[in-house]
Amino acid sequence: MGAMQPAELIEQLKTIVGPGGFREGSDIESKNYQDVMGDRAIPPLLLLRPSSTEQVSEILKACHAANQPIAPQGGMTGLVSAAAPLQGEISLSFERMKKVVEVDRLTSTMTVEAGVELQTIQEQADANDLLFPLDLGARGSCTIGGNLSTNAGGNRVIRYGMTRDLVIGVEAVLADGTIIDGLHKLRKNNTGYDLKQLFIGSEGTLGIITRAVLKLSSKPNSQAVALCGVNNFDKVANLLVHVQSKLGSNLSAFEVIWNNTYKLIDKYVPHVTVPLADGYDFYVLVESMGSNTARDSELFFDTLGQAADNDLVDEVVIADSNTKIKNLWAVRDGAAEVIGVGYMHTYDVSLNIADMGYFGEEVEKRLRQEWPDATMGLFGHIGDGNVHIIINVGPNTRDYHLQIDEIIYGLIQELHGAISAEHGIGLMKKKFLSYSKSESEIALMKALKQTMDPRGILNPGRVF
Amino acid sequence: MGAMQPAELIEQLKTIVGPGGFREGSDIESKNYQDVMGDRAIPPLLLLRPSSTEQVSEILKACHAANQPIAPQGGMTGLVSAAAPLQGEISLSFERMKKVVEVDRLTSTMTVEAGVELQTIQEQADANDLLFPLDLGARGSCTIGGNLSTNAGGNRVIRYGMTRDLVIGVEAVLADGTIIDGLHKLRKNNTGYDLKQLFIGSEGTLGIITRAVLKLSSKPNSQAVALCGVNNFDKVANLLVHVQSKLGSNLSAFEVIWNNTYKLIDKYVPHVTVPLADGYDFYVLVESMGSNTARDSELFFDTLGQAADNDLVDEVVIADSNTKIKNLWAVRDGAAEVIGVGYMHTYDVSLNIADMGYFGEEVEKRLRQEWPDATMGLFGHIGDGNVHIIINVGPNTRDYHLQIDEIIYGLIQELHGAISAEHGIGLMKKKFLSYSKSESEIALMKALKQTMDPRGILNPGRVF
Repeated sequence: MGAMQPAELIEQLKTIVGPGGFREGSDIESKNYQDVMGDRAIPPLLLLRPSSTEQVSEILKACHAANQPIAPQGGMTGLVSAAAPLQGEISLSFERMKKVVEVDRLTSTMTVEAGVELQTIQEQADANDLLFPLDLGARGSCTIGGNLSTNAGGNRVIRYGMTRDLVIGVEAVLADGTIIDGLHKLRKNNTGYDLKQLFIGSEGTLGIITRAVLKLSSKPNSQAVALCGVNNFDKVANLLVHVQSKLGSNLSAFEVIWNNTYKLIDKYVPHVTVPLADGYDFYVLVESMGSNTARDSELFFDTLGQAADNDLVDEVVIADSNTKIKNLWAVRDGAAEVIGVGYMHTYDVSLNIADMGYFGEEVEKRLRQEWPDATMGLFGHIGDGNVHIIINVGPNTRDYHLQIDEIIYGLIQELHGAISAEHGIGLMKKKFLSYSKSESEIALMKALKQTMDPRGILNPGRVF
Repeated sequence: MGAMQPAELIEQLKTIVGPGGFREGSDIESKNYQDVMGDRAIPPLLLLRPSSTEQVSEILKACHAANQPIAPQGGMTGLVSAAAPLQGEISLSFERMKKVVEVDRLTSTMTVEAGVELQTIQEQADANDLLFPLDLGARGSCTIGGNLSTNAGGNRVIRYGMTRDLVIGVEAVLADGTIIDGLHKLRKNNTGYDLKQLFIGSEGTLGIITRAVLKLSSKPNSQAVALCGVNNFDKVANLLVHVQSKLGSNLSAFEVIWNNTYKLIDKYVPHVTVPLADGYDFYVLVESMGSNTARDSELFFDTLGQAADNDLVDEVVIADSNTKIKNLWAVRDGAAEVIGVGYMHTYDVSLNIADMGYFGEEVEKRLRQEWPDATMGLFGHIGDGNVHIIINVGPNTRDYHLQIDEIIYGLIQELHGAISAEHGIGLMKKKFLSYSKSESEIALMKALKQTMDPRGILNPGRVF
């Protein structure tokens, strides 16, 4: 089949999806142009809105034949500019594939189309007395297809794992239109290679996920939260070991706010009242979720009491009502709501917990060498080794992005950490991929890409 | 580089590993010839026993240059003939790579070489007040490299997942000798494709795993076990939903023994005394493990009591001592110890729990059409959808292997199940791979194999 003229291809694609299945020109809304972090705003050549896996397959077959690059998109809530179209790309949106196909109580699974919003999935699970544990701030607009393709993390990874751990089956379409139907509910399935792993976390570069079977958990009915003031990072680390050992699988969050972030929240997030004085080096939010309210609460009090007795915490406040639980989480969530300082660059890295105390001090030192008056804060899901950094270096802070990247990712490289814990690579981090991956690893990734998408039509230029 | 004469290659390989690093001819012990199920016993051309990742890399580089097929091996406890050498192959054993490199309490990880036995890992975790949850009968002789390459399952998948879910980092060597160093401890790492997934569960066909970082869990300190007599499969299914909802993450096993197996255990396993009469259709072993002895035990009693009140079980015995816990597990484990009947073919399939009752009846009906007097039993990890079948059809039962396969796998295909839940494909099931995987899936697997091992030297002929 010879190469097609763009106009001819576009007509063919319109026929595949039918009326209502596409938008073009000024009918394409700006929400389809860019993700949360993107400073590009390039309208796609055409916005396709297929309504079935078969249509996705036909679209890819046609684009493959025509060497036409195509960028899949979900809720456009990504933070690394992976889904925003590049010049000359066609976008493929899942906004018409939003069906919850089935909730199966017996296998504790839910089968969904890629365009279903995370919050819908959470609510459907809840209505069936089950839990879909993935949770992140964008829950109301992000889609499960996007969550899968970035292997999203979020608040409760310490207990339930990343998105990858919450998926049983995936249906995906390869670059040439071939449908890989891995849509089963079997928790144990050792029949050859686990192909779904190629589609999860590969940011749309190896195939396009169209449907998935998700693993649901039993719904916890107890929740207990404490906020601890702790005076050095060694204590934080020992506190982690202590609560892991005592709370076991009930431990559902271990979030740390560095003093610098705590002060920013206190000063710049008007709706949050901080419950502890700002004199501690670290503030640790510990959460337990379990299956028995009375018993779990007793265990939680005992565990925090022992922590105090053993000098692992210097002060602790335990929430004894749902309102107070919400208030403690509001402190932690406040880290993402610091306003009035100006644009904050946001980083998402992971490293060994043993290196975390040093990292916090060293990264601030190096950044202050360049920008003595920068506003910066550290916080994160420390139970998983994941730390976020927010930074504003002054007026025109956006212009210094690459310089800040270089300092932070340089230190991560020295400490053998990951330049992305959960957000992915996309376009924004690809320059630094080699800071966390060896030449051999990158070569193998490229070989896989070449095999699965020889014409490079699937989200080209993302990841590497 | 031109092709090498075999003798020349063998000298080169001996030089790489040095004296003590190889065995040849009659010095190769028969344990290195075959796995548990193998009826072949082919000595390898040469048995290599490297002592480092670098040696493995040099070996593969040389074999790649010479187009020499090579079969990696661990404890040779596999059940699908994946590790036993074929004619003309060189074997690579990990019997000299048995180091536990590090136990890290802070990240709850253990770093090990591929040749470490599973039981050693369990014991080292335990000594550090942690748990490595993978557990299977061959624990004393199987190696973690083998566990990883087959993505082993075992008894507690319902709570902790398969081996794949218990691994953070993998170091592996590609067919051409390239070392992929993914040996990190980062629970969250979204820097590009998750390459370790290619090596886990691919039975040595895409690369050879040399070291791994394992995820440890907090050690439960409570254990409670019950055996329930249940009169139909609908009740079994509802009991599963009930205990999942009540016990939450404490549920650590949900094992079902069909009446046919229960009778076999009673009759043919002398050291087991069954605690319930043999009149129930199903016997369900429910186990809870948690972090608080008194509270967990109360919850367990309540849960089973409610099950009885709601007519989900017809009789129940709850173990109230460690000895009685051992005795109840001995009943379940007895399913693998039926002796005196003759050779038993063993099957390992998975399917939707909703289909399980029908499957049990239908598979027996179809098998008895051919062999009315066959001795057969069903049992399995039903909480994970995994059922095992043991069958002896009479004298020369080994000769009927393929016929029995055809009946069992044929029914699995009709029900969209998996012909292997945990044992893998190896040589023994590859004829039936298409019963569980589509043409497109198999084509993609082959494309990956071609990319990563273009000369087909890594465990050729296994899986497909």
